[in-house]
Amino acid sequence: MKLLSAVALSLVVSLAHAENGKPKNIIMVVGDGMGPAFTTAYRYYADDKSSPTIEQTVFDRHLVGMASTYPARVSGYVTDSAAGATALSAGIKSYNGAIGVDENKQSVKTVLEQARQNGLKTGVAVTSQINHATPASYAAHNESRHNYDAIANSYFDDKLNGQFVLDVMLGGGWKYFIREDRNLVEEFKSEGYQYIDNLDQLDTLKPGPVLGLFGDSGMPWALDMQDKPRLPEMVKAAVKQLTNDKGYFLLVEGSQIDWAGHGNDVASAMAEMHDLALTLEWLEQYVQENPDTLVVITADHSTGGFTLAANGDYQWDPDPVKNLSMSLTSLAKEMSASKTPIETAEAALGFELNDTEKSLLQNADFKDVKALYGQLKGLLDIRTNSGWTSSGHTAVDVQIFAMGQGKEHFEGFMDNTDIPKIIFEMMESEK
Amino acid sequence: MKLLSAVALSLVVSLAHAENGKPKNIIMVVGDGMGPAFTTAYRYYADDKSSPTIEQTVFDRHLVGMASTYPARVSGYVTDSAAGATALSAGIKSYNGAIGVDENKQSVKTVLEQARQNGLKTGVAVTSQINHATPASYAAHNESRHNYDAIANSYFDDKLNGQFVLDVMLGGGWKYFIREDRNLVEEFKSEGYQYIDNLDQLDTLKPGPVLGLFGDSGMPWALDMQDKPRLPEMVKAAVKQLTNDKGYFLLVEGSQIDWAGHGNDVASAMAEMHDLALTLEWLEQYVQENPDTLVVITADHSTGGFTLAANGDYQWDPDPVKNLSMSLTSLAKEMSASKTPIETAEAALGFELNDTEKSLLQNADFKDVKALYGQLKGLLDIRTNSGWTSSGHTAVDVQIFAMGQGKEHFEGFMDNTDIPKIIFEMMESEK
Repeated sequence: MKLLSAVALSLVVSLAHAENGKPKNIIMVVGDGMGPAFTTAYRYYADDKSSPTIEQTVFDRHLVGMASTYPARVSGYVTDSAAGATALSAGIKSYNGAIGVDENKQSVKTVLEQARQNGLKTGVAVTSQINHATPASYAAHNESRHNYDAIANSYFDDKLNGQFVLDVMLGGGWKYFIREDRNLVEEFKSEGYQYIDNLDQLDTLKPGPVLGLFGDSGMPWALDMQDKPRLPEMVKAAVKQLTNDKGYFLLVEGSQIDWAGHGNDVASAMAEMHDLALTLEWLEQYVQENPDTLVVITADHSTGGFTLAANGDYQWDPDPVKNLSMSLTSLAKEMSASKTPIETAEAALGFELNDTEKSLLQNADFKDVKALYGQLKGLLDIRTNSGWTSSGHTAVDVQIFAMGQGKEHFEGFMDNTDIPKIIFEMMESEK
Repeated sequence: MKLLSAVALSLVVSLAHAENGKPKNIIMVVGDGMGPAFTTAYRYYADDKSSPTIEQTVFDRHLVGMASTYPARVSGYVTDSAAGATALSAGIKSYNGAIGVDENKQSVKTVLEQARQNGLKTGVAVTSQINHATPASYAAHNESRHNYDAIANSYFDDKLNGQFVLDVMLGGGWKYFIREDRNLVEEFKSEGYQYIDNLDQLDTLKPGPVLGLFGDSGMPWALDMQDKPRLPEMVKAAVKQLTNDKGYFLLVEGSQIDWAGHGNDVASAMAEMHDLALTLEWLEQYVQENPDTLVVITADHSTGGFTLAANGDYQWDPDPVKNLSMSLTSLAKEMSASKTPIETAEAALGFELNDTEKSLLQNADFKDVKALYGQLKGLLDIRTNSGWTSSGHTAVDVQIFAMGQGKEHFEGFMDNTDIPKIIFEMMESEK
């Protein structure tokens, strides 16, 4: 009976939100480094070649527009993840490196903070450390993204109307939260936060605030956690913890798409895209059942200068990266420790190496794991015919995808700063 | 009085079209090879750095969606311009190389042909030869794009309901239309077509069909025709020639964006984008005055694996390609013939070469014009920090832009074949 009342009340609130066109819950999803080449590549990676047609992906189903990503003029046309996230969180252009501060290093209010001020619950679920540039730009303020310890401290120290800024924090970051000089995990626990350090514990959470850290800095690669898709699991748990009658704001980041881009690692790029796509497929269902929720998905920039085809050859073949049993970083380590490294490689890659590939790997220095990782990446670039131009970011516009209540406000071309401006406006009448 | 009646009649027809939501005139614009990096780059190329904000371009103002570009499965995921244009003209996937034919090499009806069958006037205005892959895929049928002579012949030989397929043909192509075995120019003239071979003659055209050829194969680079923006001039003239009470279908192509991409030539890439942008700015005005016209703009694919930033450096600087007085191909020729090649280069590039650049050029073989062209391109890649991965095409999704009557039908993500399907549907009720 009590349960029925709660459901009924929630439905009334949902309908009230639906009627005024404003979403009750807002989920902002950032695919870090996910430029147009990444979403296109994912379609062909996900394609079943035995069927006559190429299926649309969850990205395709929800494309509404595109955004420019340039930072403040002082930093040129190519943004970093800090200025990119500050543009997305606060609606202002700042310098590369800025975490929730303007060009004069003054703090600027973020949509997540506005949500908190409006009485909503708030959270972050990311695959990087939770104090990395993107989540930090929503929930903290610092003149430099590199001040990781200070940003972690601020999650505990900086209160908003006497409250912690974040109810839910899921991602990596042991080394920043459990330090010699300060143990933030213990401090959060003493304030009533549940702490977990293993994804399996997500199922055991009781209602209330939570800090979940699942890696020393970032979490392991998606390819090394194939038994438990990590971002979907964290997002499901975050949504469950945050759900309440007033609504919530959740920041989700597929952080390591960017890291795969920086590394020019097509295998991890596709696996990280898959981890995000599974998350979005779950959110797609969630929005159907909770139509008062808005989900906006975009990227902060593209990374690596990734291109689908290279060297004058008109083909791109994702097959060689479809069956990996582990990440290339893990494989390089295993090969280094293996007495039969070629066999180790073939088993992990899921295909037989040809003679050229064998001789390339046989001539490698098996003690140099980093170089071996580079050779494995190069081997897959040739097999897939992938191109890369940079270890850094590029300035190409990124897509905007949206589902649920108010998605129509994100249609067409806009600047990345327009995204939070629209969200601020939506929250204006919610205060 | 007679003029007034014509204007009044035209207005009545316009209103009738506007009321049923179907466009009277359809202008399909293809930016060949114009992937997302090209439109993004153009924004920063067009940016006035002395102003605090970065202005939106004509592309930004009209973005409505994105399209996938993959060819028939037999050709993998990376399309060529023939399969890409056949997808856009006929709404079917075919093999790379196919001109208006399906996988079985059977002719398929194109939107231009449907327009002709509906009694509309039709035309093409392109900067390539008019029998190149994109225009050919709208107005001809051939199993291979390489059969240039046969395609040119078909423009004269193949009639639709006893009529020529095209009323207006503007672009390059002397070598295909004036041949030893056949003089198509004379044949078209004998059938009442006006023939011109100089852009200045566009102003002298009388009402009626026209063949205008302005180059041996493609037209000269935009950078070598800066006194007379070539695509805008041709499109203005084509629209004037085609305007009539029943309406028209015009295919426009910024063909040489692709050629700059193939050449990895950032200077011509930006100048060709500017030529297309000027065309679109004129069309933007035209649609305001003729709201019964639909303009759809897209690309067939992206070319060159162009990236804005490269080599780990977070910057892209268009300044070095803003003041060129000629194309790099022309400059290479002039340097080869010059007694003071360094001064020739500095005068044409619009900036002083630094010592590294000077020594690079001084050590060049001035007899080898092609190699010199390569060195000039490389020099500008370093100055602008542009990246390229291929001399061919890439598979990244492309944008869709639309203005005027019915533009809302092109919103969101679709496959490139959906674009003509929508246009066919629009024309269905016009028959």
